[in-house]
Amino acid sequence: MIMTDPLTATFAALADPTRRAMLARLARGPATVNELAEPFTLSLPTVSRHLKVLEDAGLVVKERDRQFRPCRLDTGPLQSADTWMEPYREFFGERLDRLDQQLKAMMVARRDAARTKKPGEGK
Amino acid sequence: MIMTDPLTATFAALADPTRRAMLARLARGPATVNELAEPFTLSLPTVSRHLKVLEDAGLVVKERDRQFRPCRLDTGPLQSADTWMEPYREFFGERLDRLDQQLKAMMVARRDAARTKKPGEGK
Repeated sequence: MIMTDPLTATFAALADPTRRAMLARLARGPATVNELAEPFTLSLPTVSRHLKVLEDAGLVVKERDRQFRPCRLDTGPLQSADTWMEPYREFFGERLDRLDQQLKAMMVARRDAARTKKPGEGK
Repeated sequence: MIMTDPLTATFAALADPTRRAMLARLARGPATVNELAEPFTLSLPTVSRHLKVLEDAGLVVKERDRQFRPCRLDTGPLQSADTWMEPYREFFGERLDRLDQQLKAMMVARRDAARTKKPGEGK
């Protein structure tokens, strides 16, 4: 049996649009399972299954001491994912720079092409 | 058939320690499949399978015009994941504040307990 590391569990939990929507709902405040199920056209068992994945990843905590056991968001695992992302962030600017350079090169090429064209040459 | 949205494909691709290690390797520069396989005790087909997941998610691009078709990192999908993370970041500070408060409360409680203990009471 392969033990799943926390970061893998977090990313696997985030790899589903319904689960991401559930997290977005919980970011606005705690909610019961019924309240979480409401906006989705999903059965309660399906929502519970998604919730289980989020709980196992530590992204959702069920308040055990309160009636209806509302679920609340724990952003701890997201913070770890955010930290993992850190070394890659330096590329984001570079990537934009590269796209920017490509765009500029295309514009220069287009302008040059327009200039070298004789009037009426067209096409 | 359910179409996988780009964000889901990205998070699913990140949900594996080998694939994350491969991305970390590519962050240092392009590498051939053999170079990528080297540090892992994995067969070439297994590495190729992981690479396929990364390619499908757009995280890795194979240079088609060069010999040995080296793989390079494309951080575009990571940037989208980073953007998705944005609204949750405001909670990170809050969470630390709460942990900090809990720690302070524990320290106060411990100090109070130590003060109320009579000398020699111990245990």
